[in-house]
Amino acid sequence: MYGAGDVRIENVPDARLVEATDAIVRVSLACICGSDLWPYKLMEAGEKSRVMGHEAIGAVEAVGADVRTVKIGDVVLMPFAYSDGTCDFCHEGLHTSCVHGGFFGTPALAGAQAEAVRIPLADGTLFVLSVSKDDSLMPSLLTLSDVMGTGHHAARSARVSRGKRVAIVGDGAVGLCGVIAARRLGAEQIILLGRHADRIALAKDFGATDVVSERGEAAVDRVKELTQGFGVHSVLECVGTDQAIHTAIAIARPGGAVGRVGVPHYETIPEAQPTFYNNITVSGGPAPVRAYIEELLPDILEGKIQPGRVFDRVVGLDDVPDGYRAMNERESIKVMIKS
Amino acid sequence: MYGAGDVRIENVPDARLVEATDAIVRVSLACICGSDLWPYKLMEAGEKSRVMGHEAIGAVEAVGADVRTVKIGDVVLMPFAYSDGTCDFCHEGLHTSCVHGGFFGTPALAGAQAEAVRIPLADGTLFVLSVSKDDSLMPSLLTLSDVMGTGHHAARSARVSRGKRVAIVGDGAVGLCGVIAARRLGAEQIILLGRHADRIALAKDFGATDVVSERGEAAVDRVKELTQGFGVHSVLECVGTDQAIHTAIAIARPGGAVGRVGVPHYETIPEAQPTFYNNITVSGGPAPVRAYIEELLPDILEGKIQPGRVFDRVVGLDDVPDGYRAMNERESIKVMIKS
Repeated sequence: MYGAGDVRIENVPDARLVEATDAIVRVSLACICGSDLWPYKLMEAGEKSRVMGHEAIGAVEAVGADVRTVKIGDVVLMPFAYSDGTCDFCHEGLHTSCVHGGFFGTPALAGAQAEAVRIPLADGTLFVLSVSKDDSLMPSLLTLSDVMGTGHHAARSARVSRGKRVAIVGDGAVGLCGVIAARRLGAEQIILLGRHADRIALAKDFGATDVVSERGEAAVDRVKELTQGFGVHSVLECVGTDQAIHTAIAIARPGGAVGRVGVPHYETIPEAQPTFYNNITVSGGPAPVRAYIEELLPDILEGKIQPGRVFDRVVGLDDVPDGYRAMNERESIKVMIKS
Repeated sequence: MYGAGDVRIENVPDARLVEATDAIVRVSLACICGSDLWPYKLMEAGEKSRVMGHEAIGAVEAVGADVRTVKIGDVVLMPFAYSDGTCDFCHEGLHTSCVHGGFFGTPALAGAQAEAVRIPLADGTLFVLSVSKDDSLMPSLLTLSDVMGTGHHAARSARVSRGKRVAIVGDGAVGLCGVIAARRLGAEQIILLGRHADRIALAKDFGATDVVSERGEAAVDRVKELTQGFGVHSVLECVGTDQAIHTAIAIARPGGAVGRVGVPHYETIPEAQPTFYNNITVSGGPAPVRAYIEELLPDILEGKIQPGRVFDRVVGLDDVPDGYRAMNERESIKVMIKS
């Protein structure tokens, strides 16, 4: 990524071991994330170029001298953040705040929209899958790198539980996984705020009970109508814009919670007084997806949830630029990259 | 209260039953709240005058025709909000959002810094105490009207639990009750941010393990020093100023929570991006003290907690104006009013 709208496929030096705790993973599946669209829209041409991508499944090709549990040939899942798995925060299940951790696809670390990727702290970061590389569950497993874990984090942060009324702001892949997560945690009513027919259809398949396609004040009014005038117990904010956080807060019921997972492009959280007087909780952040794999994996293996259905387009590496275009123009929900 | 600094004692018409669900309570003990100091500082002279006060213990003097459980002669505790006790929100324990509820000491409803007070929805609102009027526990019981329940709400909202590191922003009566609440819930480290020697001494008696008297950035640095550089799991924000919420957020550890109970005098919650990237939760609001009485009462009756020690001055009704002055000038922590 060289700047807004400027994604190029280039030959770069091979990924190689740098630290003794590194592994090199040959990427078999990767994808483009909704969050990749932020630099695709906003990155300035002068900024340092980045190797994008923070979601992948692949095979371990090399390991550093200090790697103990991950072995060459293992089929592994890569969470969007790397983490040591041993610090206080990792032990608390907040791997995204690991004291030695960081993020893939940033100016500091090359990402997984590539043939291979260097994985720091391989033992802590990678999750070894007990499946073959051609398993039909691969697309769903791939979502554990980010979107399914992130939808789940939104639901947990918004305190979804059995019998609750839930709204999801945003019909992107994370929002759709939020529908799956809310259903899985026992929500009684699941309202999707979205406007795209294909996404709405998928959301209904995933368990959405209501759809609100209005925006702004009209959306708030419609959610209130659907919830006896009170709003919902739990809001999953899966967009990150100023309008989205305003709407999310406005549709939360007194005592309710907003779980933020959309990367915020706003500086302050609005409505400090209404959120106070209504005891509304604002929570969330980058999902510690590494912590959630063990909880979500069995449901994927048993076919109970199918988050892989968010992928509606598959491209090779050469077609990644067109994948960005397609996602940015809402032509595709989420693009999978097959090497 | 007629305006900033203008508190008068006047003869007004007697409190009387209006609705069939009302009771009239003859006030034996009331008090001045830190939140009463906001209008004492800011109320404009043109505004409608208010009968202040939202905390009281007294005896029931009259009940309306539809009052079923509260009886004439009962010694009762009045929470700062009235509530029906039967709506969805009351059942969820959020009595401050009762669909038929409201607040004492507002332009809409006269308060308890008076000889008697009208209590709407008496059956839902009042808590009947099984003590005599001259019980030595009265000051502590009186704090269940607001400050002890509010400190407890801050602690619950900030998710205090066994072994956690906790900071309390504000050394007023609510902050001091927050220390009691944090200790009671098993916090391992309790850092009070405050500057007044008398309050600090009381906080230490209540269980504070550390005191930080710096302000702003220096306070943040000091809390970080005391917490291995990370900040605390739980912050009880008991002030409500812009500086207080900034400090509260800055000293929360990744994955931590800020419980707000200081009435916010800021429009937006700052640091939308740092709170996101660190998965910091912002929660809290007006405390549903009615819901907490049953949890906290036994500890007061057994002498395990003594929140009544926050009262360091007792006045009669005629001296209430001087009580406001004393609290506003930090000469007194909290003033009790004895009729």
